[in-house]
Amino acid sequence: MSKKKEFVKEITPMEEDFPRWYTDVILKNELVDYSPVKGFMVIRPYGYALWEKIQEFADAKFKATGHKNMYFPLLIPESLLNKEKEHVEGFAPEVAWVTHGGNEELSERLCVRPTSETIICNMYSKWLNSYRDLPYLYNQWCSVVRWEKTTRPFLRTSEFLWQEGHTLHETYEEAQEETLQMLEIYRQVAEDLLAMPVVVGRKSDKEKFAGAEATYTMEALMHDGQALQAGTSHNLGQHFTTAFEIKFLGRDNKEHHPYHTSWGISTRLIGGLIMVHGDNRGLVLPPRVAPTQVVIIPIAVKKPGVKEKAEALYESLKIKGIRVELDDDPKESPGWKFNQYEMKGYPIRVEIGPRDIENNEAMVVRRDTLEKLTLSLDGFEEAIANLLEDIQYSLLEKAKKHRDEHTHTMIDYEAFKADMDKKKGFVKAMWCGSRECEERLKKETGMSIRCMPFEQEKLQETCHFCDKEGKHMIYAARAY
Amino acid sequence: MSKKKEFVKEITPMEEDFPRWYTDVILKNELVDYSPVKGFMVIRPYGYALWEKIQEFADAKFKATGHKNMYFPLLIPESLLNKEKEHVEGFAPEVAWVTHGGNEELSERLCVRPTSETIICNMYSKWLNSYRDLPYLYNQWCSVVRWEKTTRPFLRTSEFLWQEGHTLHETYEEAQEETLQMLEIYRQVAEDLLAMPVVVGRKSDKEKFAGAEATYTMEALMHDGQALQAGTSHNLGQHFTTAFEIKFLGRDNKEHHPYHTSWGISTRLIGGLIMVHGDNRGLVLPPRVAPTQVVIIPIAVKKPGVKEKAEALYESLKIKGIRVELDDDPKESPGWKFNQYEMKGYPIRVEIGPRDIENNEAMVVRRDTLEKLTLSLDGFEEAIANLLEDIQYSLLEKAKKHRDEHTHTMIDYEAFKADMDKKKGFVKAMWCGSRECEERLKKETGMSIRCMPFEQEKLQETCHFCDKEGKHMIYAARAY
Repeated sequence: MSKKKEFVKEITPMEEDFPRWYTDVILKNELVDYSPVKGFMVIRPYGYALWEKIQEFADAKFKATGHKNMYFPLLIPESLLNKEKEHVEGFAPEVAWVTHGGNEELSERLCVRPTSETIICNMYSKWLNSYRDLPYLYNQWCSVVRWEKTTRPFLRTSEFLWQEGHTLHETYEEAQEETLQMLEIYRQVAEDLLAMPVVVGRKSDKEKFAGAEATYTMEALMHDGQALQAGTSHNLGQHFTTAFEIKFLGRDNKEHHPYHTSWGISTRLIGGLIMVHGDNRGLVLPPRVAPTQVVIIPIAVKKPGVKEKAEALYESLKIKGIRVELDDDPKESPGWKFNQYEMKGYPIRVEIGPRDIENNEAMVVRRDTLEKLTLSLDGFEEAIANLLEDIQYSLLEKAKKHRDEHTHTMIDYEAFKADMDKKKGFVKAMWCGSRECEERLKKETGMSIRCMPFEQEKLQETCHFCDKEGKHMIYAARAY
Repeated sequence: MSKKKEFVKEITPMEEDFPRWYTDVILKNELVDYSPVKGFMVIRPYGYALWEKIQEFADAKFKATGHKNMYFPLLIPESLLNKEKEHVEGFAPEVAWVTHGGNEELSERLCVRPTSETIICNMYSKWLNSYRDLPYLYNQWCSVVRWEKTTRPFLRTSEFLWQEGHTLHETYEEAQEETLQMLEIYRQVAEDLLAMPVVVGRKSDKEKFAGAEATYTMEALMHDGQALQAGTSHNLGQHFTTAFEIKFLGRDNKEHHPYHTSWGISTRLIGGLIMVHGDNRGLVLPPRVAPTQVVIIPIAVKKPGVKEKAEALYESLKIKGIRVELDDDPKESPGWKFNQYEMKGYPIRVEIGPRDIENNEAMVVRRDTLEKLTLSLDGFEEAIANLLEDIQYSLLEKAKKHRDEHTHTMIDYEAFKADMDKKKGFVKAMWCGSRECEERLKKETGMSIRCMPFEQEKLQETCHFCDKEGKHMIYAARAY
C-alpha cells in the first residue's frame, strides 16, 4: 500500500523529460511491463482492456464492410518469404528464425511472421478459381515479431499485437477503393474512438511498405511534437499475386492476377493515445475507449445513508450502460483515491457525501479539464452520459488545436533549419518527389516525410529543397 | 461452380471410414486447410467464426467470474522453461526453438511458448507483494506451438489457438475452488454452447499436466466411440510458485508462496463439435454456436412477390436477433442449395414459394432430424426462435443418448478384452491406482484412463486389472 501511495506522486513532468514521463505513466498505471526477453513487453490488464476496446470498435467496422476473420500459421518457410524481392529485402533483416522443432533440426528455417502476406498469398493461390469468388475480404488478429534494436513499450517492440487485413480484387480500381476505405475506417478508430486527430495521405516511395505499389497512412502528432504513424493501408497491386502465381478465370475467360491490398493497426495506437491526451497527473482517457468511464467515491462513507446512496448511483449509471466503478474502500482516504483515479485517467469522478445527499446533488470532476461541477441527482444519469460525450468531443478538439498550433508552413528551408528546435511538430513544404531531397531533409533535420496528405495546398511553385517543380505538398516531422 | 457442385456429394460415409469422413467434412466446408508448414493449419472464415462464438461465450464467463485478460511474450528463454523440473521434462521434447533474431545468433535460445506458466510466473514473482493483492485472476487468448509428429486439423496440430488462465491464491482451498470453478465453466461451454455432453473428473498422475498437483478434465465421446479431452484445469499447488520464488507477505506477516492454477480450452473443441454432431450429409451445428442459424431459400424467386416476402422474413428474423441468411441467387437451383446448407450444418432451412405465400405459411426443415414442418407466417419469428432452442436441446439429448449407449461397465477384464472391438466407447472399471495396471490397460487395449469421474460408483471391491483394492472408478477409452 505504501508503495502505491508513492507511485501516485512520482510521474516526471513531461516538460522536464518527455520519454521519462511516458515510461512513468505506462509503468505506474500498470499498462505494461518489461519482460525477461529483451524488447518484448507484457501487456497488463489495464493496457489490454484498452486493446480490447480498440479491437471491438475496429472488428465491428471490418465486419460491417464485409470482412471475415481467419487465422494463418505463425511460422513461415524461408522460401515463401523470399518470393517477393522487395518484401524479403525489407523484412529479412528483422525476423526471428526457428531452426529446431521437437529436438530436431529443421530442413528449412521458419521465420516467426513479421507480417503474413507471403503465407496468405500462398494459400490464396490454392483457393482462388474464378472472378465469381472475388473479392476476398479477410482479416486476422494476431501477434507479429520484428527484431528491433531500440524498443519502447507500445511504440516499438519486438513483438506486438495487431490485425492484418488481406484482400483480393478483380480490378485495380476496386483494390484502390478498398485501400482507401480501410484507411478511412482507421481514421474513425483514431478520431472517433481515441479522439486522436490524424493527417491522412500517401507515403513516399522510400517510406512505403516493402512490396507495395502505394502505402497510405494516418499520422498523429504527439504532445512532444513528434509524429506517430498510427495505421497503414497498402495497395499491393499485382506484386505479390504475380510472385505467388495467384490467378483467376476472368469474365473474358482468360487467366488474370488479382489486385491485392493489406492494412494494419496495432497496439502502437495505445502509445499514441497516451502521448496525445496524457498530462502531468497521468493518463487522460477519452470516454469511448476508457475501460471505466466513471468512478464514484463516497465521502464520509460511514455516515448514515452515504454508502447506500453511492450504491444506488452506481446501479443507476450501470443500467444506463455507463462503465462505472464504486470505490468505497474505507482504508484509503478520498484524497488518495482522487490522485489514483486521476493518474489512471478515468474520465469522470463523482464525489458524494452527507451534505451532497442533503442537497440532492453530487460533485462531479472532469479528468480532462479538472473542472468541478455540482450536478443535481435528478436526471443524473442523463447528465453524466452527456458529459461523457462532451469530454470525448473536447479531447478531440483540444488535440486538434495542439496539432494545428504545431503545424508550420515552410517559407525557406535554410531559415527553417536554423529555427527548427523552436518549431516542433509538423512542417508543411513542397517537394519535387526526388529521393535526394527526401534524404537531404532526413540527414539535415532528422525529419522524415510523414505523408503527402490527400488535402493538397500549393504553397509555392518550386520544391523547398531544390529548384525543381514542387509536385507534392508534404507533411514532415521527426517521428516515433 | 462445377467444382462446388461435386463437393456436396463427396463426403465419405462415416461408417465406411470415419477419419476420411472427418477430413471430407472439414475440407469441403472450408473450415480449415493444410498449410505449407507441416502440421500447421489455416483456419478459414467458417471455422474461425465457430472459434469466435466459443471465445465470446467463454470470455464473458471468465469476466463474470472476475478474470481479466493480459498478454505475455510469445518467446520464452530456455532458462525459464528449465526452472520447474517436471514441466521442462514434459514440454522440452515438443517445443520449437528460435536461435536467430535479426541476422544474429542469440546468446540464449528462446522457445515459442507451448504454454505460458514459466514466463507468467516470472512476471508474477516481480509483481506480487501482499495477500491484499490476491487473488490474481488473469487469462490470455493466444496461439501456442507444440511440435507434433502426427497431426489432424483442430484435434492435434503443431500450432493451435487457445486461452490459458493463470491464477494465484492465498490458500490451497481457494486454488482448488478456482480449479473446479473453471472446469465447471468449461462444462458449460461444452454442454450449454456446443451441446457436447462431457464426463468431468480427475486425471491419473500419468495423464496429468507436467508440473501439476492435480489435473481435472472434461472428456467427450465422439461418434466413432473415441474419447476427446476437451478442456483441462490444473491445480498447480506451489510447484511453480516455489520454483519461481513467487512470494507474498501473509496475514501473519510472514512470507508465503501462493497457490496456483492454470486452465485451458482450445480450437480442439471445434473438432469435437464436428465429430459429436456431424452426419453423412456433413456438419450439424447446434444453434447457439452456429454462425448462421437460419437460411431462407425462396422457391421460384422470379414469381411475383416471392423475393419481397423472402426479404421481409429475413428482416423480421434479423430484428428478432436470429442469425439469418437469405440466398436468392437465381443461378443455383433450390435443390443444390438444400444440399449445400445441409453440408454446412445450418440448423434451420426455410423454403418459401408462391403457394406457401398464398397459404400464409413456409416450409421449415430442421437440420438435426431433417424433419419438415409447415409453419404459419403469423408468429413465425417466435416459432423459429423456439425451434432453435428445441434443436439445441435435442442435439444435447441425442449426444447424451449416444454416449450412454456407448458407455459399458466392465465385468471381467479378460472377457472385455476379447469382446472390446464390439464395445467401442467408454468403459467404466475399478482401479487400484497403480501405474502398473494403468500401463497394462494401455498396452493391451490401446485405452487410456480418461478420468476418475467426480460421480463415483463402487462397481466391485477389487481392481479390475489386479487383485488389490479398487480405489477409483475410472472411465477408460481410446482417445484422440
